[in-house]
Amino acid sequence: MIDAAARAVKPPPMTSNRTFGERVMRLVDDLARHTDGPGLTRLYLSPAHRATAEAVRGLMEAAGMSAGIDAVGNVAGRFGPADGPVLLIGSHIDSVVDAGPFDGPLGVVAGLVAIEALGREGVPLPFAIELLAFGDEENVRFPTNLSTSYAVAGRYDPAWLEGRDADGVSLRDALRAFGTDPEGATALGRDPGQAIGYLEVHIEQGPVLEAENLPVGVVSGIVGISRARCHVTGEAGHAGTVPMTMRRDALAAAAEMIGAVERIGARRSDTVATVGVARPQPGAVNVIPARVDFTIDARTPDDVVRAAMMTDIAAECRAIAERRGVAFGLESTMESPATPMDPGLTAALEAAMAASGLPPRRLVSGAGHDAVAMATLCPAAMLFVRCLKGISHNPAESITAEDADMAVRVLVEAIKGIARSRQGS
Amino acid sequence: MIDAAARAVKPPPMTSNRTFGERVMRLVDDLARHTDGPGLTRLYLSPAHRATAEAVRGLMEAAGMSAGIDAVGNVAGRFGPADGPVLLIGSHIDSVVDAGPFDGPLGVVAGLVAIEALGREGVPLPFAIELLAFGDEENVRFPTNLSTSYAVAGRYDPAWLEGRDADGVSLRDALRAFGTDPEGATALGRDPGQAIGYLEVHIEQGPVLEAENLPVGVVSGIVGISRARCHVTGEAGHAGTVPMTMRRDALAAAAEMIGAVERIGARRSDTVATVGVARPQPGAVNVIPARVDFTIDARTPDDVVRAAMMTDIAAECRAIAERRGVAFGLESTMESPATPMDPGLTAALEAAMAASGLPPRRLVSGAGHDAVAMATLCPAAMLFVRCLKGISHNPAESITAEDADMAVRVLVEAIKGIARSRQGS
Repeated sequence: MIDAAARAVKPPPMTSNRTFGERVMRLVDDLARHTDGPGLTRLYLSPAHRATAEAVRGLMEAAGMSAGIDAVGNVAGRFGPADGPVLLIGSHIDSVVDAGPFDGPLGVVAGLVAIEALGREGVPLPFAIELLAFGDEENVRFPTNLSTSYAVAGRYDPAWLEGRDADGVSLRDALRAFGTDPEGATALGRDPGQAIGYLEVHIEQGPVLEAENLPVGVVSGIVGISRARCHVTGEAGHAGTVPMTMRRDALAAAAEMIGAVERIGARRSDTVATVGVARPQPGAVNVIPARVDFTIDARTPDDVVRAAMMTDIAAECRAIAERRGVAFGLESTMESPATPMDPGLTAALEAAMAASGLPPRRLVSGAGHDAVAMATLCPAAMLFVRCLKGISHNPAESITAEDADMAVRVLVEAIKGIARSRQGS
Repeated sequence: MIDAAARAVKPPPMTSNRTFGERVMRLVDDLARHTDGPGLTRLYLSPAHRATAEAVRGLMEAAGMSAGIDAVGNVAGRFGPADGPVLLIGSHIDSVVDAGPFDGPLGVVAGLVAIEALGREGVPLPFAIELLAFGDEENVRFPTNLSTSYAVAGRYDPAWLEGRDADGVSLRDALRAFGTDPEGATALGRDPGQAIGYLEVHIEQGPVLEAENLPVGVVSGIVGISRARCHVTGEAGHAGTVPMTMRRDALAAAAEMIGAVERIGARRSDTVATVGVARPQPGAVNVIPARVDFTIDARTPDDVVRAAMMTDIAAECRAIAERRGVAFGLESTMESPATPMDPGLTAALEAAMAASGLPPRRLVSGAGHDAVAMATLCPAAMLFVRCLKGISHNPAESITAEDADMAVRVLVEAIKGIARSRQGS
């Protein structure tokens, strides 16, 4: 079926797919001008977020979509019929403090440029496309995490509205100031019977694609995350007068534990484990450390493997503590399950890559994304785009126009492939 | 020869050597009441230091000594003839902030009580005894270290007078405010031809004697100290998106280096090595650490061994850094040579211990003492006294009256032994 609205699209004057990349780069640059301060900082529901949402709505409307800003600040634009099956495409437009321009906006803009191309080509689609620009992915301002994509997935918890930012402003009041009715947040869930899938394009935020000289890769799954705070308690002492055999050095013990965390994290290619924080006390050159607090962050796409990692880490740390006569405590601070990607949509992305002459490459997403929330609504899949040195959450975040071009081409091909498979079924 | 001044001493009314310990404990308690604030804090040239010095001078004079306060604030009391050979005994009366009562004053009081006993007994001595209460051992207020004992050793550097405390007060002005003439500091050196030796009683500040159930031990030597600041520079990264094989984790590298420092420190029974400070940056649960700064403190009484330790530590750290692809820098911040104790005086202390029924036990001093400065003037030896759990620089610092009693008895016996050996020669 060919939809009237799709045929009505007035695409920008483009002569070739080769310019997808240039348009993506220009639009990302345009959106990056909306910031709450120097550099790029665009926290959820800030004035810069509002300005960006308005700009995205304008782009959607210019591409022939019916678009609006919803009760939690999402920009939602629909391409194609207002009812019936819908393929969702999205990412986020909020940012961390002092961010790069691509983390989030790339996925929104790639979706927009793909829809522009589909409209320009007049491709018949057996479903509508809804493009979503989420607002609460970076988990910076409020205690919430992915609240805007969970709203679209129909899983908004009204208790989240009571959460407050560092200035004491509640999420409810911030939504009102943004210009929406927060009471509508729980009514945004899409019909799972009509949502045929969710696709998200995102920069990799890691070094794998660059190392393998690949412009894009398909995400096999989004890791689950376990976090813990650990405490090692030994005994302070004079660095000169306590013999090595009589010490209960908390830092020497913690150092051995940090080695164990690293070793367990490196056991498999799809696991990682990190100690990012370590604080020895009292912290003087001539005093044997009495206590060290450190953190653990362990990730893998397999929840059973992740649980085993944390069990092994805790057991090794306890054995080290016992052998050294120090006390060890471990307090879990996060248990976030893994999100596998949908095999059918993932295969559609891989087929689209093959059609563009790219080898298949599946990689794990070590970071969370809106796809985690959307996967609770419908099948979900993600396409990662190579970024310079894996740098993200930093003004140095960078991708090439060529890779952006490839991402849009793969997305367009994947949408066509999904359309063919539904038409064939 | 028996000296007239010694015979003139009016000892306090004591009936038995068994009360040495009680008198030591009472005098230490008395001196501990002089403090610059709550608890016990007695910085060099402070009002509390002045009050303590006056009290010590009074005790010396009551014991029949001619006593005074010198140009750098030392209290010096002479027992016996004003000229001729002299045995020096001393320790310090300054303290760290929030100190215990024994670190320093024990040695001054033990010397005083020993002299009182010798006077009471009318023991003939072929030398005078000079008791010294030094003022600048703890290295807290001014940049100087052991300046007052180095003054007695004839090694006062007048440049030290320009050093300033945290309030900007120069040492010269502080000495004037204390009531002395700082220009006299360089004229305090004793005649090396007459100084037959230096003895110092001090709490162990370590756990060895307590662990071996011994009241006192003889110091074989005072360690040399090497200190360094180290810098490990890797690369920051997302704790989820950078595979373990592509990381350059500065903390994981530093942890392995801390293990190497500990291992090298434990190679011999007379070596120690400590990492007391370690600061990972940026220090976030989900960020791979980019940099760690840490300190090394290595000690042993053998300077050749100490140099080899530092060479080996640096080599192991460099090898770890190279294998992990991180940068490593090591900057030496202290090289303080070891001070061996005099074999003859050490043997005299051991013979005195044997006469009291104690087994010989030599132990290394892992901390610096005034004996380091005095050993540049004359033969020096030290007697360590067991302290509770090795605790020092802390209000919980504690010794027993029985152990104090034993320390004075050993000191008296050693002095008599030194006298016999000189009379015999």
